[in-house]
Amino acid sequence: MNKTISIIGGDLRIVKLTELLIKDDFKVYTYGVENADELTESKNLIKCNSIKEVVDSSNIILGPMPLSIDRKNLSAPFSEEKIDIDTVIEEMSNKNKTFIAGQILDNIAEKLQKGKITYIDLLKREELVVLNTISTAEGTIQLAMEETQRTIHGSKILVMGFGRVGKVLAKMLYGIGAEVSCEARKDSDIAWIKAYGYTPVHLSELEGKLGEYDIIINTIPFLILDENRLNYIKKDCTVIDLSSNPGGVDRKAAREKNLKVIWALSLPGKVAPLTSAQFIQETLYHILKEM
Amino acid sequence: MNKTISIIGGDLRIVKLTELLIKDDFKVYTYGVENADELTESKNLIKCNSIKEVVDSSNIILGPMPLSIDRKNLSAPFSEEKIDIDTVIEEMSNKNKTFIAGQILDNIAEKLQKGKITYIDLLKREELVVLNTISTAEGTIQLAMEETQRTIHGSKILVMGFGRVGKVLAKMLYGIGAEVSCEARKDSDIAWIKAYGYTPVHLSELEGKLGEYDIIINTIPFLILDENRLNYIKKDCTVIDLSSNPGGVDRKAAREKNLKVIWALSLPGKVAPLTSAQFIQETLYHILKEM
Amino acid sequence: MNKTISIIGGDLRIVKLTELLIKDDFKVYTYGVENADELTESKNLIKCNSIKEVVDSSNIILGPMPLSIDRKNLSAPFSEEKIDIDTVIEEMSNKNKTFIAGQILDNIAEKLQKGKITYIDLLKREELVVLNTISTAEGTIQLAMEETQRTIHGSKILVMGFGRVGKVLAKMLYGIGAEVSCEARKDSDIAWIKAYGYTPVHLSELEGKLGEYDIIINTIPFLILDENRLNYIKKDCTVIDLSSNPGGVDRKAAREKNLKVIWALSLPGKVAPLTSAQFIQETLYHILKEM
Amino acid sequence: MNKTISIIGGDLRIVKLTELLIKDDFKVYTYGVENADELTESKNLIKCNSIKEVVDSSNIILGPMPLSIDRKNLSAPFSEEKIDIDTVIEEMSNKNKTFIAGQILDNIAEKLQKGKITYIDLLKREELVVLNTISTAEGTIQLAMEETQRTIHGSKILVMGFGRVGKVLAKMLYGIGAEVSCEARKDSDIAWIKAYGYTPVHLSELEGKLGEYDIIINTIPFLILDENRLNYIKKDCTVIDLSSNPGGVDRKAAREKNLKVIWALSLPGKVAPLTSAQFIQETLYHILKEM
Repeated sequence: MNKTISIIGGDLRIVKLTELLIKDDFKVYTYGVENADELTESKNLIKCNSIKEVVDSSNIILGPMPLSIDRKNLSAPFSEEKIDIDTVIEEMSNKNKTFIAGQILDNIAEKLQKGKITYIDLLKREELVVLNTISTAEGTIQLAMEETQRTIHGSKILVMGFGRVGKVLAKMLYGIGAEVSCEARKDSDIAWIKAYGYTPVHLSELEGKLGEYDIIINTIPFLILDENRLNYIKKDCTVIDLSSNPGGVDRKAAREKNLKVIWALSLPGKVAPLTSAQFIQETLYHILKEM
Repeated sequence: MNKTISIIGGDLRIVKLTELLIKDDFKVYTYGVENADELTESKNLIKCNSIKEVVDSSNIILGPMPLSIDRKNLSAPFSEEKIDIDTVIEEMSNKNKTFIAGQILDNIAEKLQKGKITYIDLLKREELVVLNTISTAEGTIQLAMEETQRTIHGSKILVMGFGRVGKVLAKMLYGIGAEVSCEARKDSDIAWIKAYGYTPVHLSELEGKLGEYDIIINTIPFLILDENRLNYIKKDCTVIDLSSNPGGVDRKAAREKNLKVIWALSLPGKVAPLTSAQFIQETLYHILKEM
Repeated sequence: MNKTISIIGGDLRIVKLTELLIKDDFKVYTYGVENADELTESKNLIKCNSIKEVVDSSNIILGPMPLSIDRKNLSAPFSEEKIDIDTVIEEMSNKNKTFIAGQILDNIAEKLQKGKITYIDLLKREELVVLNTISTAEGTIQLAMEETQRTIHGSKILVMGFGRVGKVLAKMLYGIGAEVSCEARKDSDIAWIKAYGYTPVHLSELEGKLGEYDIIINTIPFLILDENRLNYIKKDCTVIDLSSNPGGVDRKAAREKNLKVIWALSLPGKVAPLTSAQFIQETLYHILKEM
Repeated sequence: MNKTISIIGGDLRIVKLTELLIKDDFKVYTYGVENADELTESKNLIKCNSIKEVVDSSNIILGPMPLSIDRKNLSAPFSEEKIDIDTVIEEMSNKNKTFIAGQILDNIAEKLQKGKITYIDLLKREELVVLNTISTAEGTIQLAMEETQRTIHGSKILVMGFGRVGKVLAKMLYGIGAEVSCEARKDSDIAWIKAYGYTPVHLSELEGKLGEYDIIINTIPFLILDENRLNYIKKDCTVIDLSSNPGGVDRKAAREKNLKVIWALSLPGKVAPLTSAQFIQETLYHILKEM
């Protein structure tokens, strides 16, 4: 396995990852993390002074996750500088480089292809997506603990959607001692919910049950808790919405009804940067071994 | 929902199902279960005297699961008679009937189509397949309890394959207190195994680990424990093979090595006929509602 | 069951309890919670203007939990006033009153006896002590989530002491997916730890194992993690001490070694006041039924 | 630790224990297990020809568990011979021997004292009693699987009594996926049942609930399911009674009501002799270390 890597930009997870790689005898070239005080000195850690230097130092270039927030510059919260994506791509072009980052949008992918750069989107690696659900589930539980005056233990909790996050979240809530119901629309998901020992709620019976829960957690990526359904929810219920923009809850209607709704996004990086770094490391090693 | 149904042949699960349907106010016509003493008299239970009578009495005809063992006659362990499949199909033909049974082979399906009979294979209903894994998993645990001199609790157990049965089985073994390892070949399955809290074993590291386990349970449907791999297994390990013909274990080699291998098939009907009947009932109702 | 009660002082749990009692058709007289905005108006809620009034209104007087922090006045965080314990006792004396509160110290108990007041210490009710462990355990988990950069899932966690809190805490941590070890000194506790499926660590082997854990949680009520033992702990381990004054960790030594130690006390009231109120309510009903 | 031991009589557990001790470099002298084919030859296994020889060969003498069934001879199912307890005691007397066995009745204890023999009752060692609950719980689950036509998963099960066996049994049943209720009479046990996540049933509400269960398992050591209470149980419920003579169920009344009652005793030795042997070994080592 190739043990030289260049890392550009990135948040706390990438900083932690840098440390894990150095501990594991990697030689790491960095750029765009100059304010990360956590990075301890090491002979295997070389802080580069230019994009050209960091790119030329290794064949594997690791970018941020997600790659960019503004769609123009690399995401680099530990740097004062703006790191233009196009400049980085230009520097990597036609040099036999492999670029690894998270959430590479189509227009960027096109430019990478033009530059004959092999690229791998970390967030399309199923194993990382699955591992991230662990952090997401725990972050959600932490939020539920902080934002309610009850214990999870003994609370009646509805998890909406039985996809990856729904499965791991239900397991943990159950493990703490909650009374867990899971909502799904497919008969086979309902069968899985039974097999795992949770109370199944078919979408068709949702309205009749919504009033029972102390906490409702949505993982469905479209407007499922619309104005009408919100009417059925208990006044002192806490709703946590994990689905990304535009979210699964009619927020305006919820405000009018005075319901407590928390919109929680990007939990893995926030609640457990070290564990997240370990998950990225594991996935990175799979990628390096496959090369 | 149509509450009249004709039932031909079938094992103890179908007999139990008959009782459940009658309790639920169905009118049930039967044929080919004359020796099922369990069936209590009821005004809603009509025992027919001929195939023609039972077929003509309802639009829904429920057959056995699996449909046939000898590929010629309906499976009917509670009957002295041979019930020829072709005769049944002929009787149903061109009468707008719906035929529901388990494991309808292609040549039978063809004949049903020719007779313009709508047919539904119960064992292609994902919800029933999932629910059946519950019975399969429990039956496997019962076997492991009966066939070993150890408790499941504290035993080191390897589940090979992380498909439907593997998932439910691992959960139950863990719930009893076993040290559960799960083998898989895909990185994403390894991630799931971690997420669920079991010890992951990648196929590539299998040989090195096989010697650790007290019990090995295979769910992979091809020869995975070949002669070479069997060499690594502990002498007092018990191997349970759940995969259907030809099975996942080289049985001849295992015998020569004096390893204890148990080949366990069709557990749901054997270990929990009542629960299995309830699962079929649930699936049947989904089908009837969709009609 | 007598459904009239007087409540003096108390924290958010007692305020929540007041609401639960009113919902359950109790007539409640209060004093010393005038700043509790949460208390909604109700014909069954009577706010009294003097100690005499509140005491004379019912035969059952409920005090705070714990009764007092400064050993002189009732604990009454929702009041501007100082409520002298002696005054309350005097007012209750020789009137056939029953006084219920938490943690009634010996000198107070003596005064209550002199005044011929029946008294019950809520924190000596085993069922409440057990129920409170649920809140304590969850509060500890919330802390661990907030104060570490890892997920609980997959972390190696040592719970020291296998008493009430240890038992419930270990169960929840395990339910989230931690690798849970439990320390105890009695062979029978070690047997219980095995029976519950955690990794047992006998006190005699503690030093050799301390270096393995990401998180160590102490429930033992005396100095167990002394300067010597602290030497064995990993640098990035988080230590949470749940044992009350003087605590189970040599805090000074820990500071010198730059170890992260969190001293967490009185979690139930802080993290889950509503659930705690329900637990007090349940215990109160047992008491009232026994009268 | 003294690694020489003499073993007289005993069932399959003691035979397995003998093998475990030899594997662990003990020198073992045996008498009264001549028909145990499982015992493999070893230079550390010496089969003695007389009681005198086996007693004189070590200072530690291990007897059966339980010591005797007929109160006259040692329990020795692997021997053709009768081994009179009095003869063994006489042989050990005044020679500084330590005698270890299970369930040493008072009259035997008296004789041992007279002979100045140190004796230890294994079944009074709390750690062994706790460990045995694991085997008892699993044996009960195996029975429930064999004797019902349902899966444990999804069944409504009542565990009566929340002592040692009740606790471990409830945990395992829950782990398989049963809906577990636990009956107790003390408020603090009810609190524990809640803390562990089972449904609590107070003795005072038992009659009203008895009709709900598919399986009822009694661990209470006196007649709790009397004729009156049996009236409330569902006709197709399976009752398993784990309490020793006279048992917790009015068996005569149950027969008249045609209820299925299984009386299950001494499960550890029957269902998991190897695990039981390991538990005895562990306890034996504790004893030897304490000497």
